[in-house]
Amino acid sequence: MRILIANPNTTPSVTDAIAAAARAVAAPGTEIKPVTGRFGARVIGTRTEMAVAEHAAVDLLAREWADCDAAIIGASVDSGLRAAREMLAIPVLGLTESALHVACLTGARFGAVTLSSRSLYVLREMVEGYGLAGRCGGLRAVDAGPMQLLREPAQVADLIVGEATELVERAMVDCVVLIGAVMAGMPALVQPHLPVPAIEGTRAAVVLAESLVRLALPKPREGSYAALPRRELLGVDPMLAKRFGA
Amino acid sequence: MRILIANPNTTPSVTDAIAAAARAVAAPGTEIKPVTGRFGARVIGTRTEMAVAEHAAVDLLAREWADCDAAIIGASVDSGLRAAREMLAIPVLGLTESALHVACLTGARFGAVTLSSRSLYVLREMVEGYGLAGRCGGLRAVDAGPMQLLREPAQVADLIVGEATELVERAMVDCVVLIGAVMAGMPALVQPHLPVPAIEGTRAAVVLAESLVRLALPKPREGSYAALPRRELLGVDPMLAKRFGA
Amino acid sequence: MRILIANPNTTPSVTDAIAAAARAVAAPGTEIKPVTGRFGARVIGTRTEMAVAEHAAVDLLAREWADCDAAIIGASVDSGLRAAREMLAIPVLGLTESALHVACLTGARFGAVTLSSRSLYVLREMVEGYGLAGRCGGLRAVDAGPMQLLREPAQVADLIVGEATELVERAMVDCVVLIGAVMAGMPALVQPHLPVPAIEGTRAAVVLAESLVRLALPKPREGSYAALPRRELLGVDPMLAKRFGA
Amino acid sequence: MRILIANPNTTPSVTDAIAAAARAVAAPGTEIKPVTGRFGARVIGTRTEMAVAEHAAVDLLAREWADCDAAIIGASVDSGLRAAREMLAIPVLGLTESALHVACLTGARFGAVTLSSRSLYVLREMVEGYGLAGRCGGLRAVDAGPMQLLREPAQVADLIVGEATELVERAMVDCVVLIGAVMAGMPALVQPHLPVPAIEGTRAAVVLAESLVRLALPKPREGSYAALPRRELLGVDPMLAKRFGA
Amino acid sequence: MRILIANPNTTPSVTDAIAAAARAVAAPGTEIKPVTGRFGARVIGTRTEMAVAEHAAVDLLAREWADCDAAIIGASVDSGLRAAREMLAIPVLGLTESALHVACLTGARFGAVTLSSRSLYVLREMVEGYGLAGRCGGLRAVDAGPMQLLREPAQVADLIVGEATELVERAMVDCVVLIGAVMAGMPALVQPHLPVPAIEGTRAAVVLAESLVRLALPKPREGSYAALPRRELLGVDPMLAKRFGA
Amino acid sequence: MRILIANPNTTPSVTDAIAAAARAVAAPGTEIKPVTGRFGARVIGTRTEMAVAEHAAVDLLAREWADCDAAIIGASVDSGLRAAREMLAIPVLGLTESALHVACLTGARFGAVTLSSRSLYVLREMVEGYGLAGRCGGLRAVDAGPMQLLREPAQVADLIVGEATELVERAMVDCVVLIGAVMAGMPALVQPHLPVPAIEGTRAAVVLAESLVRLALPKPREGSYAALPRRELLGVDPMLAKRFGA
Repeated sequence: MRILIANPNTTPSVTDAIAAAARAVAAPGTEIKPVTGRFGARVIGTRTEMAVAEHAAVDLLAREWADCDAAIIGASVDSGLRAAREMLAIPVLGLTESALHVACLTGARFGAVTLSSRSLYVLREMVEGYGLAGRCGGLRAVDAGPMQLLREPAQVADLIVGEATELVERAMVDCVVLIGAVMAGMPALVQPHLPVPAIEGTRAAVVLAESLVRLALPKPREGSYAALPRRELLGVDPMLAKRFGA
Repeated sequence: MRILIANPNTTPSVTDAIAAAARAVAAPGTEIKPVTGRFGARVIGTRTEMAVAEHAAVDLLAREWADCDAAIIGASVDSGLRAAREMLAIPVLGLTESALHVACLTGARFGAVTLSSRSLYVLREMVEGYGLAGRCGGLRAVDAGPMQLLREPAQVADLIVGEATELVERAMVDCVVLIGAVMAGMPALVQPHLPVPAIEGTRAAVVLAESLVRLALPKPREGSYAALPRRELLGVDPMLAKRFGA
Repeated sequence: MRILIANPNTTPSVTDAIAAAARAVAAPGTEIKPVTGRFGARVIGTRTEMAVAEHAAVDLLAREWADCDAAIIGASVDSGLRAAREMLAIPVLGLTESALHVACLTGARFGAVTLSSRSLYVLREMVEGYGLAGRCGGLRAVDAGPMQLLREPAQVADLIVGEATELVERAMVDCVVLIGAVMAGMPALVQPHLPVPAIEGTRAAVVLAESLVRLALPKPREGSYAALPRRELLGVDPMLAKRFGA
Repeated sequence: MRILIANPNTTPSVTDAIAAAARAVAAPGTEIKPVTGRFGARVIGTRTEMAVAEHAAVDLLAREWADCDAAIIGASVDSGLRAAREMLAIPVLGLTESALHVACLTGARFGAVTLSSRSLYVLREMVEGYGLAGRCGGLRAVDAGPMQLLREPAQVADLIVGEATELVERAMVDCVVLIGAVMAGMPALVQPHLPVPAIEGTRAAVVLAESLVRLALPKPREGSYAALPRRELLGVDPMLAKRFGA
Repeated sequence: MRILIANPNTTPSVTDAIAAAARAVAAPGTEIKPVTGRFGARVIGTRTEMAVAEHAAVDLLAREWADCDAAIIGASVDSGLRAAREMLAIPVLGLTESALHVACLTGARFGAVTLSSRSLYVLREMVEGYGLAGRCGGLRAVDAGPMQLLREPAQVADLIVGEATELVERAMVDCVVLIGAVMAGMPALVQPHLPVPAIEGTRAAVVLAESLVRLALPKPREGSYAALPRRELLGVDPMLAKRFGA
Repeated sequence: MRILIANPNTTPSVTDAIAAAARAVAAPGTEIKPVTGRFGARVIGTRTEMAVAEHAAVDLLAREWADCDAAIIGASVDSGLRAAREMLAIPVLGLTESALHVACLTGARFGAVTLSSRSLYVLREMVEGYGLAGRCGGLRAVDAGPMQLLREPAQVADLIVGEATELVERAMVDCVVLIGAVMAGMPALVQPHLPVPAIEGTRAAVVLAESLVRLALPKPREGSYAALPRRELLGVDPMLAKRFGA
C-alpha cells in the first residue's frame, strides 16, 4: 500500500517531519510518498494563506495521486480536504480531522492545543464544521512559532503540557489533540507528563488511511463527492484540468 | 463610494449580469467596479472548483481593491470571503451570506432555492458555517444549468416558483433566498408568483456593503481578522504577496 | 425616506439620544421621526417591564407608522419586534437584532456588553431566540445604570472598555456589540480604546432600515408575518384595533 | 391550596372551559380561581395579539394573585410567563410549557398538534425558547378555528387524531401534546383513538402547580427572577405599578 | 397511592435516607415502598457500576412494581430509567431527570452540584441526553464522598454552598440542583445560605410521580416505550423474564 | 495482535457471523477471539434487554479481555461501551460507533438503515449521544427480523437497498451505515445496488481497533475513563469484582 502525503505548505522540512512520523507508525508494507506544495505559504497561518492552500492542495494531489492507494493532506487546516474527496477515487484524510475522530474513539470529550492563538479561531471553525463541537471541551494555544518548536522542542513541550493539563483539570477532557503539521514529534515529549492520551494528526491520519484502504469502500456515484463532471477550467495545472476530463 | 464586485468565476458575462443587478439597486453616487476571475471555473459548481476559487478570489481582490470602499465576492459560494475580510481593510460581503442575513431581518425562517442539486450539499454547509441553520427551513434545487437559466429564464422561473412554493407551504418559511450569481435577474420573474419575499444575493450584498461603509467600523487589530502579518508566499501574484508585506 | 423610531420606553430624553445618533448616520434625504412610548417603564430593565413594553411598542407603532417607510423599535430588548413585522407592511428593525447581524458581517464571533447584569439573562435569551448563539463568544455587563451613563459617560466608557477587552482576549471575539438604547453615544468614547469594532444598535438599525427600504421586498401573504386577519380586540387603542380591520 | 388561572384571552367561555378541566384534575382541597383578561384578543392567534397579551397577563396576575398559592396562565402561548415568574413570589405555570415537560417525562420525543397553522410558527419558537427542540419530533396543525372546535368537537377530534397518528408513525413520537386553551375537553375524544398518550396543557399545569406548591421553593433573590426593584411605571394599572413598589 | 422507590445501590441506609425524604414531601395518602438493589455497587460512582446498575434496576423493578402506582429509581444516574418506562405500565421517574425538569419550571437556567468530580462527566452526558443542555448553566462537584456527607453534613453543606454560590454569580443560574441519592437531607442545610432555590431529586421525583398518576396517561402501544414483545431471556431473574411473557 | 469480540447477545450463531466478517477484514497476523454473552437477550431489541446487556457486556469483557490487545462489543447498541473503556486498559470499540466514525471520514453526511423500526428510536439516541447528529441525514428501518435476514438475505437486501436509495435521493447522504450485528454479510449484497458506500459495523470496528492498537495511546489517569478505584460490588462475577480490586 502506498500513501501519498501532500503537504500544501511550501517548506520541504515540514514535509520531511511529517513523513518521518508517518513512517514510524505505518504498517509493514505501507510506503509513504511525501510531496510538498508548489505555491503558497511557508507554513499556513492566516486565512488568506488558507485560501491559497485550498488551490495548492488540489493542484498537488492532482499531480501526485495516481500511483497511491490513499492520500493525506499534511497541514493542520486540512486544506482542500472536501475537494480532494470529490476529485479522487481513493480515500483522503486530513491531519486534524483524523486526530479528532481518533479522539472521539478514546474518550467522551477532547481538548486541543495548537501553536498560535491566531489559528485558534480557525480551529474552532474546523471543529464546528466537522460537526464535533459537542465533543470538544476546549481549545488552547501556546503561542510559539513553528520555528521555535523545531529549535526548542523541550521548551515548547513544557508550554503544551501546561495548557493540556489545564484542559484536563478545568474542562474535563479525556484526551488532548495536538494540532499542527509540526507537532509530529511532540507526543514523545509531552505524553510522559500528561494524565490523558495525547493524539497527533499524522499518526492518526496514517492508521485511518490504512483502515479505509482495507475497507475498500467504493467511490460515490451520487452527491457532492461523486466523480467530477466534465468541465473546462482556465489557467490551472494540466493535471488538475485533466481531473475534469480536459 | 466605489464597490468592487470580484467575480471568481472566469465568465465575463456572469460578471456583467451581477454588475447590472448591482447598479440597479445601488444608491445614487455609488459606483460599481466589476472584475472577473483570472483562473479557475467558468461557473463554480463542484468542491474542487471551489478550492481553486478560494485562491482566485483573494488573487483578484488583492489586485483590484485599492481604489474601492467595499468589496463583494460575486459567487454563490462566497469564495475566499473570510480570507478577504482578513486581507483587506474595507468591508467585504458575499452574495449568499448577505442574502441570508437580509432574510433573517424579514422573517423568522428562510428557505433557499439553488440551480443544481449538487450545490445543495455545499449550500447546507454554508448555512451551517454561518451559524444560521436554526433559521433555515429548507433548501431546494431546480436542477437547471446556468446556461439554461440564461437561455430560458421564464421556464427556470417556473421551476423556482414551484420549489419556493413548496418551501412556503410545507416548511413554513417566511421568505425564499435565490442562491446563485446568475439569479440576479430572477426576482422580477418569480416574485409576482410568490406569497413571500424573494431575496437575491447581489442586491442584498450591495445594500449591506453601502451600510457597512456608512458605519465606518475600524479594521480589527486583534484576532483572525487582524491585518496580515509579514510573510513570504511562493508562486503567487505579486499583488497578493504584497498584502503580506512582500 | 422617513424612518420612524418608536421608543417603547416612556422617557423622552432617551428618545432624543436615539434620534440624534440615528440622524448622525442616516443617509442624506432620510428623515428620522422619533416618538416615545405612551405607557410603561421609564427605561425597560425587568421582564415585567418587557411584558408591558410589548404592548406599548405595538400601540405606538400602530399610531405613528402611517407616513413612514420603515420603523425602528428603540429599545435594547427589541420590544414587539416580531408583532410589528406582522402588523405593518413596512420593514421593522430592532436595535439589538440589527447590531447582532452587522456584527455577523464583520467577523466570525461577536461579544456584547450591556449596562446591567440583570439584563444579561434576557440578552442571552434574545441571542438564542435570533438563532445566533453559535456566533456569540460572550456577554458581559458593567452594572452601571442608564442615568449614571448619561451623567458620567467617560467613567462608564472605561468600564465598557474593560469588559470588551476581556471578551477580545479571553473569548476570541472579532467585534463587540454595545447593547442598550442609551449606548447611542458610546462608540465615540470606547472605539479608540478597543482593538476590534464596537457596534451600536441605533446606527446598525438605521443603515439596515435604509437597506431594506431600497430592496423593496413585498409584504408576505403567507405565514405568521402575513397581514393581520380581521379580529376584534377589546380595550386597546383604536389605531391598534384598526390594524385588525376594526 | 388555591390556584389562580389567569386567562389573558378576553373570552369568559374559554376561561370556563379551562376552569372545568382544571377542577377535574385538581387534588381534593385544591380550589381553582379562574379570571379573564381585561383587554386584548378574544382568542390570541397572531403575534400582535400576543404582544398585547404579554401586558394583559401581567395586568391580570398583578390584580388577582394575592390570595393564591400558585398561578397558571391560561393561554397556549404562555403569555407573560417569564415576567410573571419575576413579578410574583408564587409558582407560575403556562399551559404549553407544562404540557411539554410532562411529555418529556413520559417518553423520548413528543409531537404537538395545534388548531391553526398560523400558530405553528409561534409554537416552534416556543419549543425552541424552552430549550426543548431536541425532544420535539414534529408539530402539526388541523386548521380548525376555536369556535369550530367548540361547535363540532367530534369532527375536530377526527382531524387531530389524523395528524397525531401521522406524528406517531412518521416522526416516531412517544406522546402527542394538544396545544391550545380550548383543547381542554379534547383528550376524552382523541385518546381512545391514539396509540400514545395525549397530553393537554390545563391538566399538566394543574398537577405541576400543585407539585411546586408542595416543594415550597423560595423566591430567588438573585438573577432575572429576583423580586422586582423599585421602579416607576407610567399609565399601567395601580395594582401592577404596586408590584414595583409604587 | 403507592410509590415504589427502587434503589439500585446495594446499601440499605441510602434507601432509608431516600425513603425518609420521600415521605416528608409525599401527599397525605401516598405510601412509599422502598426497596434496595440485589447486586452491584454500594453507591454507584463509576461507569462500570452504572452498567451493572442498569440491570440491577430493571431486576428490582420487575420484582417489586406489581402493587404500585408509580416507581422512582433511587440513584442519581437514573439507572435503567428508559428501560423501566418500556417494561412497566406505570409512570417511572428518576431522581436527576425529575430535579432537572422542576428546575426548568422555576427559572431560565439551572446549575447542578454533585459530590464527586468523577461523576461530573456522567452528569454532563445525562443533561445532554435529556436534551436539556441549553438550560444548563454549569455543573460543579465538591469532591466529598457519600460517607463523608453522612458523617459531616454541615461541612459538606458548606462546600455545596460555595460551589452553588459561584454558579449563581458567575454562570447566572436561577436555581441549583443537588445531584445524588444521598443529597436527600441537604436542602435544609444549604437553602438558607443560597439566594436561589435548591432543588433535590427525591422530592422532585415524588411530586412528579404523584402528578403523573393523577394524569392517568395510557401506556403507549407504539414506539420504543410500547409494552415488551414476547422474548426469551437467558439467565435473568424469573420475574424479569416474565415481563417478556416468559 | 488479538482482538476480542464480545457479543452481549446470547446467540452463538450471531457471534459466529460477526467473527467471520471480522476475520475477513482483519490484517494478516490479527487473531479474532469471539465470545458470547452469558445472560440476557437472544438478540437485543428492546430497551429492557439493553439494560441487561450493559451488565452482560462488562461481565463478559471482564472475564475474557486479559489476553487481548483490543476489544469490540458485538452488538448494534454498543452495550457497555463507555463502561468498558473505563474498566479496561485496552482500546474498546463498538460496532455502531465505529461505523459512524468511518462514515464521517468518507463524506459529509451519513444515513443509516436498521432492521427494526423499534430500534430506530434507540439508534437516534445513540447518534445524538455520540455527538454526531449534525452529520446524520436520516435513519430508516426495513422491519425485517434478524431471523428473516439470516433465512432470506436477498429479500432483506432488497428492502435495505430501497431505504438506502431513498436516503441518498431525498436526504442527500454520502454513505449509508448498516446497523446491526447481523448485518455482517450484507455489504456484499447491497453495495452493488447502491450509488454510495455501504458501511458495516464489524468491518469498521476491526480496522479501527487495529488502528488504535498501533497508536498505543496510554490509559487515562484522570477523568471518567481513568482506571477503576477500589470498590466492593455485591453479587457480580468474581472476574468483574476483581476489576475493582476485589
